[in-house]
Amino acid sequence: MSDLENSNMKEVTANNNKVKALFLGEKAENRDFFQKEAEFVINEHTSWRRNFHPEDPERDSYVVRNSPEYQQTLAKTNEVLNDLTSKLKVDSDPWFSQRYLGQMNADTLMVANLAYLATMLYNPNNVAYESSVATSQMEFDVGKQLAHMLGFEGDKAWGHITTDGSVANFEGTWLMRNLKSFPLAVKEVKPDYVKGKSDWELLNMSVEDILDLIIETEKNGDFPAIRKETARGVGAGNGEYGVLIVPQTKHYSWVKATDILGIGSKNLIEIPVDDNYRMSIDALKEAIDECVANKIPIMGVVAVAGTTEEGAVDKVNEIQALREEYAAKGINFYFHIDAAYGGYSRTLYLDENNEFMEYDELKRRIFEDGVFKYDTEYPSKELYDSYKAFGAADSITVDPHKMGYVPYTAGGIAIKNEKILDLISEVAPYVFEEAGYGPEEIGSVILEGSKSGAAAAAVWASHQTIPLNIGGYGEIIGRSIEATRLLTQRLLNDDTIEVNGVEYKVQPLCLEPDFNIVCFAFNPVGNTDLAKMNKLNEDFWYKASYKNGPMYLNDFITSHTIFDVSEYGDSPVEFIERLGIPASEWEKVHQVTVLRVCSLTPILAHEKDLDGVWDKYYDMWKGKLAELQDAQELKEDNS
Amino acid sequence: MSDLENSNMKEVTANNNKVKALFLGEKAENRDFFQKEAEFVINEHTSWRRNFHPEDPERDSYVVRNSPEYQQTLAKTNEVLNDLTSKLKVDSDPWFSQRYLGQMNADTLMVANLAYLATMLYNPNNVAYESSVATSQMEFDVGKQLAHMLGFEGDKAWGHITTDGSVANFEGTWLMRNLKSFPLAVKEVKPDYVKGKSDWELLNMSVEDILDLIIETEKNGDFPAIRKETARGVGAGNGEYGVLIVPQTKHYSWVKATDILGIGSKNLIEIPVDDNYRMSIDALKEAIDECVANKIPIMGVVAVAGTTEEGAVDKVNEIQALREEYAAKGINFYFHIDAAYGGYSRTLYLDENNEFMEYDELKRRIFEDGVFKYDTEYPSKELYDSYKAFGAADSITVDPHKMGYVPYTAGGIAIKNEKILDLISEVAPYVFEEAGYGPEEIGSVILEGSKSGAAAAAVWASHQTIPLNIGGYGEIIGRSIEATRLLTQRLLNDDTIEVNGVEYKVQPLCLEPDFNIVCFAFNPVGNTDLAKMNKLNEDFWYKASYKNGPMYLNDFITSHTIFDVSEYGDSPVEFIERLGIPASEWEKVHQVTVLRVCSLTPILAHEKDLDGVWDKYYDMWKGKLAELQDAQELKEDNS
Repeated sequence: MSDLENSNMKEVTANNNKVKALFLGEKAENRDFFQKEAEFVINEHTSWRRNFHPEDPERDSYVVRNSPEYQQTLAKTNEVLNDLTSKLKVDSDPWFSQRYLGQMNADTLMVANLAYLATMLYNPNNVAYESSVATSQMEFDVGKQLAHMLGFEGDKAWGHITTDGSVANFEGTWLMRNLKSFPLAVKEVKPDYVKGKSDWELLNMSVEDILDLIIETEKNGDFPAIRKETARGVGAGNGEYGVLIVPQTKHYSWVKATDILGIGSKNLIEIPVDDNYRMSIDALKEAIDECVANKIPIMGVVAVAGTTEEGAVDKVNEIQALREEYAAKGINFYFHIDAAYGGYSRTLYLDENNEFMEYDELKRRIFEDGVFKYDTEYPSKELYDSYKAFGAADSITVDPHKMGYVPYTAGGIAIKNEKILDLISEVAPYVFEEAGYGPEEIGSVILEGSKSGAAAAAVWASHQTIPLNIGGYGEIIGRSIEATRLLTQRLLNDDTIEVNGVEYKVQPLCLEPDFNIVCFAFNPVGNTDLAKMNKLNEDFWYKASYKNGPMYLNDFITSHTIFDVSEYGDSPVEFIERLGIPASEWEKVHQVTVLRVCSLTPILAHEKDLDGVWDKYYDMWKGKLAELQDAQELKEDNS
Repeated sequence: MSDLENSNMKEVTANNNKVKALFLGEKAENRDFFQKEAEFVINEHTSWRRNFHPEDPERDSYVVRNSPEYQQTLAKTNEVLNDLTSKLKVDSDPWFSQRYLGQMNADTLMVANLAYLATMLYNPNNVAYESSVATSQMEFDVGKQLAHMLGFEGDKAWGHITTDGSVANFEGTWLMRNLKSFPLAVKEVKPDYVKGKSDWELLNMSVEDILDLIIETEKNGDFPAIRKETARGVGAGNGEYGVLIVPQTKHYSWVKATDILGIGSKNLIEIPVDDNYRMSIDALKEAIDECVANKIPIMGVVAVAGTTEEGAVDKVNEIQALREEYAAKGINFYFHIDAAYGGYSRTLYLDENNEFMEYDELKRRIFEDGVFKYDTEYPSKELYDSYKAFGAADSITVDPHKMGYVPYTAGGIAIKNEKILDLISEVAPYVFEEAGYGPEEIGSVILEGSKSGAAAAAVWASHQTIPLNIGGYGEIIGRSIEATRLLTQRLLNDDTIEVNGVEYKVQPLCLEPDFNIVCFAFNPVGNTDLAKMNKLNEDFWYKASYKNGPMYLNDFITSHTIFDVSEYGDSPVEFIERLGIPASEWEKVHQVTVLRVCSLTPILAHEKDLDGVWDKYYDMWKGKLAELQDAQELKEDNS
């Protein structure tokens, strides 16, 4: 990396100020602003109540409000809130602090929190338009925005807010399962539509062709009867609709999806990953070939954009290329991207017109705009091509409550062609009035029921404040990516830590992170025992987590995870070897414990004295390792 | 009804004051209190940030905060919030007002809103204990409280917060499906456990016996291999695990459940309801007999406590009696109660020790405590027996965001025996650490993923403030039930409205509501045309809803629904006859449009001049009917 600091210093400073002003701040620097705005939105609501039919009388008279029972109840409310904030302060994670480098969390946007508060007071329910005229429109708008951000273009693109990424994944699975079952249902009810096609051919129709078939059957009024014979009506079967293919790095909700959707976890095929923890394209091809050879249909393939353990982004373009290759041979499947974590980072690749930038243009802007300060390597052309290809998918999971920096819960799903919703749409007599998938129909084409209008408003307000491109979310998330890559470099360059005469080797799991996770581990120099190394990192995490008492007394907090052979195959061998553990140990232990840092914070990378920042972390880690040495000595003294 | 007003006047007044002090109020009477407490919880949070490692420097210096980019961003945030509150004020439903009598909404508890705000700032995620030490414990406690409120006793009772009632219903269906498939999986993997049992017998084992079998196979280490052969592993099949039986009045999420869970909507059997819109026990028995005769297993039976259109409470005790009758014959099924809406009303039946009261004691206390002011008929012995029997179910859906008066979203499910969770439990490497279903394990045994700790805290704080018995939630909800029953009486007693010389008949759908919904319809006296009557009530709703422009300009807002023969059979015939429509019209039109009032407000029933309150509604209705007459004349003039 070369230091291009001078060339973009002015932009860096200006944009830093913009980014910082979005959050409450590590020292609650924006506390006065936040209080004032909170007061404003509450006043807005209370004045709305008071001015709705001003002729209506005040119900609680002065006498009532001053009665002992009334005052006692207010006092009780205050007492409970005191108790609550006390519990929260003792046992909450300090996401906002640089001392927190662990789970997938950071400070959240002020505007998102304030919008949630403002809307919660009106308490709209987006399952029913009648109960959420304002916020259903916001959810509809946000759905379109997310769809476009992810590469789905045109009017048919659709999206909505889900309670979380797991539910969005379930919804994607629901869509692909019912879609896959549609052609067979056509054959059952009106065989003329698919005359001459074998069952194998029907189970291998392309998504596009099935959607056309849906339209055709709708025009003739045959759709309702056919839909009753899809999986929706007759059940999910025992694998006859095929297998779901995911990378080994998939989120565990995909295992749940096969259970809940009645597909069966035996019909989940997990593909090994390459050295960068991206799904191996060769292995994927092999798996598809094996399915075809055994006449097993493929319901869908899932790519992950931002794995939850490594931040890896699967090679979406190569998966799509493979898909086209097989389509030419008459083998078709649904394609979903689980970008719950990584989805918003696509904004870094979009210009102010929300167009996907050319590679050179992107590389130039990342620096000229001051998004990155040092790292000239990001993104590789390979990674760029993955992001570019997102629009090839049929649906994509994306969570505003992750890289959208809004509070829980706001997951989301984007869908390429809303026509597919016909397969799952419902009508509740007291809720829906008309056909079509506008704001009024959201509740009829989703998995959940009652849903918070406040969550939709929080995402909407965030998108209004921060553009979904390199000038907005891109520059926030870009900072988090650069910080991750710089920390990785530092770990590689400064890979030995000495504590009281004992030397520890430290290594990052990935040499070149795709996104903003760093996993790493310590190992005493000379130790070749994997179990012992695992114990050390497990113990380290105990010292750097809630296990060590109230987190507000801790000086460094992180998370950890275990890479097990059952889920990751032999991918971690190269990593443990770098730490001085022979591969033979892997064969014995078959798992490695690592510390896991989701570095979502956008402020780290642009600290003035970045070396000083990393130095501080090294000092904290030395402190933890010293504590572990003390504990060990104490143990040995006592034994 | 006799007027017992004098006997309980003192209690009524005192408790009224208590109840009123819980809400912000129709005229935002508690605005100062709410602002003060909001300021408090925000200060608590900002001071927490500032005092976490006081030695850490302030990141945003005075210079940074006063830079143009920083100030511009704050201004943008403010501008977006202005835009948001403007939209909310134009297009929100005035749930808080007596002028709103429609959807299942009312004012929400101040303590719930403030607790949500207080907790959202810390942004805990209850899917991972590490990210929610404080609020996972709250969710665990709330789960136990809900389970006990609903009649599940002892340590094995368990519960948790879901995003909504639909998801809770899906979770119940997931549990029953996997449970039903377990004995066959045992036979597949380790047949010795079930030696001598036929498949039919295995598909008819009792819930208790299956749970015992789970424990036995776990002790021997056989459970994991067997679980792989349950529906979880092999798929939901095409009906081989049997049918799901629900009343015709079920929420539409039950249709979705059979689709999503892969059971197939063809395997959903809907039972007609009696004149009180409760599931007909005779029809249920017939359906079961038919299944048995055809060797179709019954996966589960669902009772509804508080139907969303009529507020009907199914005869839980009679369903349980039937269940026991069939169990004696070797026919067993899972039993779920969908009490999303009605669940919290069971608090009315519990004394301060949370014991279910004797009938006479309950009737006495309802009056002596001033919960009810006039209506001496509630509850009938029949309704009492239904509530008493809740604990016979295996799981129960209950939504705090309905009768718990907390903001969206907080649904919930209670489970009689947590052992059943073994069938669905998951582990994510970075999330869960140990076995067992304490607060640390919530995320591993639920349908959803990331979940709001703030929602759990809002429910927890509400339960801390308001006891789950007749002295707390019971007295709030009791008021809403009495208001509903009194409004029904008024509609029956004052069943003709004259507007400009035209007389309209008005009738309530149910003569004696179980809960707090009133459906009603108008019909011009002399009209015998059902389609014309439906049009009138549809038009009335247009005038009394968002269809008529911004709701803040309206003087009365309600909701409406349609009872269709496909969902309700001929149940509505008696109702239309009361309105002067002959039964023969039903055969032609087969649906009736009604206005639907969910009267959740706890303040209506105890208004000093109750007759005056009803008079006001009659006046507003007359106004709407007059508007419709004008529109009609205008139309005729123009034609």
